[in-house]
Amino acid sequence: MNTVPPFRDPTVPGNSHIPRQDWDRAPWNRWTFQHVRELLPTTKVWRGMGPASPLPVDLRDIDAVSFAAEGQSHTIAGFLETSYADGFLALHGGKIVAERYLNGMAPHTQHLSQSVAKSVVGTVAGILIDRGVVDPAALLTHYLPELEATAYRGATVQHVLDMTSGVVFDETYTALDSHMAQLDVASGWKDSPNPDWPTHVWDLILSLKDLECPHGASFRYRSIETDVLAFVLQRAAAAPLAELVSRELWAPMGAEEDAYFTVDTAGYALGDGGFNATLRDYARFALLHLRGGEIDGRRIVSPGWIAATRFGADPALFGDIYREALPAGAYHNQFWIEDIARGAYMARGVFGQLIYIDPEADFAAVILSSWPEFVSTTRLRTALAAVRAVREALAA
Amino acid sequence: MNTVPPFRDPTVPGNSHIPRQDWDRAPWNRWTFQHVRELLPTTKVWRGMGPASPLPVDLRDIDAVSFAAEGQSHTIAGFLETSYADGFLALHGGKIVAERYLNGMAPHTQHLSQSVAKSVVGTVAGILIDRGVVDPAALLTHYLPELEATAYRGATVQHVLDMTSGVVFDETYTALDSHMAQLDVASGWKDSPNPDWPTHVWDLILSLKDLECPHGASFRYRSIETDVLAFVLQRAAAAPLAELVSRELWAPMGAEEDAYFTVDTAGYALGDGGFNATLRDYARFALLHLRGGEIDGRRIVSPGWIAATRFGADPALFGDIYREALPAGAYHNQFWIEDIARGAYMARGVFGQLIYIDPEADFAAVILSSWPEFVSTTRLRTALAAVRAVREALAA
Repeated sequence: MNTVPPFRDPTVPGNSHIPRQDWDRAPWNRWTFQHVRELLPTTKVWRGMGPASPLPVDLRDIDAVSFAAEGQSHTIAGFLETSYADGFLALHGGKIVAERYLNGMAPHTQHLSQSVAKSVVGTVAGILIDRGVVDPAALLTHYLPELEATAYRGATVQHVLDMTSGVVFDETYTALDSHMAQLDVASGWKDSPNPDWPTHVWDLILSLKDLECPHGASFRYRSIETDVLAFVLQRAAAAPLAELVSRELWAPMGAEEDAYFTVDTAGYALGDGGFNATLRDYARFALLHLRGGEIDGRRIVSPGWIAATRFGADPALFGDIYREALPAGAYHNQFWIEDIARGAYMARGVFGQLIYIDPEADFAAVILSSWPEFVSTTRLRTALAAVRAVREALAA
Repeated sequence: MNTVPPFRDPTVPGNSHIPRQDWDRAPWNRWTFQHVRELLPTTKVWRGMGPASPLPVDLRDIDAVSFAAEGQSHTIAGFLETSYADGFLALHGGKIVAERYLNGMAPHTQHLSQSVAKSVVGTVAGILIDRGVVDPAALLTHYLPELEATAYRGATVQHVLDMTSGVVFDETYTALDSHMAQLDVASGWKDSPNPDWPTHVWDLILSLKDLECPHGASFRYRSIETDVLAFVLQRAAAAPLAELVSRELWAPMGAEEDAYFTVDTAGYALGDGGFNATLRDYARFALLHLRGGEIDGRRIVSPGWIAATRFGADPALFGDIYREALPAGAYHNQFWIEDIARGAYMARGVFGQLIYIDPEADFAAVILSSWPEFVSTTRLRTALAAVRAVREALAA
């Protein structure tokens, strides 16, 4: 079920059926999300030379765990089979209690995680903030004076960390002329339908001239704000994003495999959604968060930054359209907060990418998918119900 | 000397100066040969999960080693500084005796090795021949019946291993309408200037309909023959080339880092010249050859295949234009034989790539470069003189 033939099989000469403008859509995404580097230019996030940090395994049988979602009853086994999942991993007590590969994925496959990248970049921001390299209260123009000529004038680093600038950015994924469509072109993911569109991400940022409300007034999901943040980090630390993620996060946390970003024609690594890594390395990233910023005895990010991320959001800024799936939710420091009282939080990406982190239960889960839809409240609610059911079963 | 600014510096927004059609030419190749994946789609050659095989280090001071070449006297230090070298490594007695990184290269940088790829593919062919998966005496059409309709009809696997088919393939690198120009387009390295040209490598192979002489009559360097060989290996082993190189060679030899190939739009990994790996992993490949096909106690390819490669060529098939740089040379099993009596042999790539293997002296050298020229007899002779001088100095 939910399986597809390989759309590109190099052993069958000439067997190539991936349309350039729709490579990330169904049904092709079932193959492409595990093969992004075979389609687009990419840059390495080096794992470094050290050993991989330990991820002890203590597998538990969770197949029969049952749960209800969206008026239907499910088991975990049934959910994994029918939810377009490519990888599933659960961590409890610092151990892998479940690890599944579907749809041709393998432990060393780097899977596109879409906007999970934002939380990776956000964590690197936390690390550089801890070290005083970046000041979240500073104006963006302190680091990027070029933004004086854009609607980002007057916004702070924290505003883009929280996506609370007042800048107009139309995130509509399926529109042909939205800012998001322009970002797909600027990032190099798609060919341009319009010669006037920006040809790389920095030029797209410079083209944003309109405000829809004052900076700080409300949260609105704008992918480009992660890219603005990434350019701040690059400028402040004087290194390309992929090198920063390697040096500050992927290598010190003891990743098992290299990761990678897609890059635009100017060499910019797409911080808002171009990140690819293995299931286990996403799990290490989750474990680092579960452990308050430490992994394998190494301090990566401060407990203060983790606590601020979990508990420091202002839920009043969260809009009703976001409360549909996350009624007690918020957004802060490039993470989705599931429940600000509990301090459970998430990295999420379109087409079904999820890293769920619940330090209170010493539990995390990673789901990598290739849904047919960009977003689906039904699928998201079902995935969250599945994850909570596994959490409760393990706690029992 | 010979240094360049980074042509793409992601910390300087919009700083992108690499022309799509000339990315592999001077001066851009000084940067691009270390960053191919940032420009082109690529596929991973996984290093596997095991530890890297040991490469003991016993550095010797070879800077002052002097030699004469092309009527000039040199030292190794001067040669490295003025020869557009990016990496240099020498092995003697199984140890690294010299290891240099220049022009921004680092130990974990994967460097394009151009036609060195051919010898990597040739070695995988040897492994599959050892195992009986591929028969060198078989007709190509036994594996690839589609070639009945091409000039490869009647040629054997050994013919393409030795580049002794009689097929017309114009290798001229700088011509705008040669077969090589078509291969640059088919491989995805360049945009097509002609809508009638083949859009992927397999289609280019199928378009080769003309014979210039009978199969087996003489050696002529035709890059496409390595691609024909690679398609044979893929079909016979039912796996994509990158997976074969990983499974049969890069992982079992204990590579330290992943390698990668560029891929065409059909997902074919460019066997004739799209391979990228680190300096040390090229050195492990050389060490494996020095040790008669064994490394770190693991048998990779048979001593018989290595001996046949070193001593089994027919020098009578070697043409005068090739003897200019290699007066006692030959070509066999996708390697250049420097001297068929001594059995010293080489992997070579345009723009100054060289792996020199001399089992008699228990010596090997790797040079990765970004020459201004595709080919240069003067530079090649100088590089060979340098390598021999290091060999002699170490033997003294």
